[in-house]
Amino acid sequence: MAYRYELRLSGSGGQGLILAGIILAEAAGIYDGKYVCQTQSYGPEARGGASKSEVVISDEEIDYPKAIKPDVLLAMNQKACDTYFFDLKHGGMLIVDSTFVNQLPTTKAIRLPFTSAARKELKKEVVANVVALGALVTLTGVVSLKSLEAALMNRVPPGTEDLNRKALELGIQLAKSHLQGGL
Amino acid sequence: MAYRYELRLSGSGGQGLILAGIILAEAAGIYDGKYVCQTQSYGPEARGGASKSEVVISDEEIDYPKAIKPDVLLAMNQKACDTYFFDLKHGGMLIVDSTFVNQLPTTKAIRLPFTSAARKELKKEVVANVVALGALVTLTGVVSLKSLEAALMNRVPPGTEDLNRKALELGIQLAKSHLQGGL
Repeated sequence: MAYRYELRLSGSGGQGLILAGIILAEAAGIYDGKYVCQTQSYGPEARGGASKSEVVISDEEIDYPKAIKPDVLLAMNQKACDTYFFDLKHGGMLIVDSTFVNQLPTTKAIRLPFTSAARKELKKEVVANVVALGALVTLTGVVSLKSLEAALMNRVPPGTEDLNRKALELGIQLAKSHLQGGL
Repeated sequence: MAYRYELRLSGSGGQGLILAGIILAEAAGIYDGKYVCQTQSYGPEARGGASKSEVVISDEEIDYPKAIKPDVLLAMNQKACDTYFFDLKHGGMLIVDSTFVNQLPTTKAIRLPFTSAARKELKKEVVANVVALGALVTLTGVVSLKSLEAALMNRVPPGTEDLNRKALELGIQLAKSHLQGGL
């Protein structure tokens, strides 16, 4: 039976989730040598700014590249959480940005303050997507942290490497604190 | 019968074709209000730097998001041209960067010097993807130029708006010269 792992990254238009999906896909596809499809879909409602990026990772060629029942849902705002939670696989992992998601559909959600931590620790909300990526990969192990860092460094604008490396590290630490029961 | 239009943008890893695909998808999905899926796929061969980005545009919801028989193939290097030409729909449009593609599989290919024009006119090869996008949209009319420019401006790094607008204009002019038989 083929291994197939589906992730959906969701939030609003400006939160950098498409770039996060590309970085995750390149970590898995280019650096970890897996088969990967990375997709974004837009409908006539896209003007509202809802954004959804999907990554499907497999150890064999991928027939259907969209997420069917995501193993992981990252929701960076309340609307994304409300809209996509019910697609999540039974027993799948819901990770939310607690800066913007207050009403949780399950007691099992993992709540981490990606945006407020980026603002507080790095003075740059714009890297909240990278903070979230660091946490997501630490919590799921879907790619190696080494591959994630390599893919990230390959995609970020020149001159922002240091900021992005710190954002990644911040996400890893948030996830580790959660795993140790500290958050 | 639903309208469905498939584009494949191909070349090497550093040529910015994933970003070009996202800009085209956002032009169609966010600004033109169509249904759009934008996909990249990676396999174990991805380390070689081959890059392929696909955009499927429809007037109804898209079941299968990958290109099956592309209506348009953009090939930014010889390998991409050789690899993907045979997937092109019968009567489909092949657009190649003549800077890097010398051997053509058909006499109907549209040859435009995206990279050498970017180098010569703008002193920046890095915007060859945007030059190609301007030409592709002018030749196909797949999205409006107004939507393309809006999507481009929304995605480019701050401070590069002027360069990117010039690159878009250069692509439009290359395509117009071709249409008038000037190239």
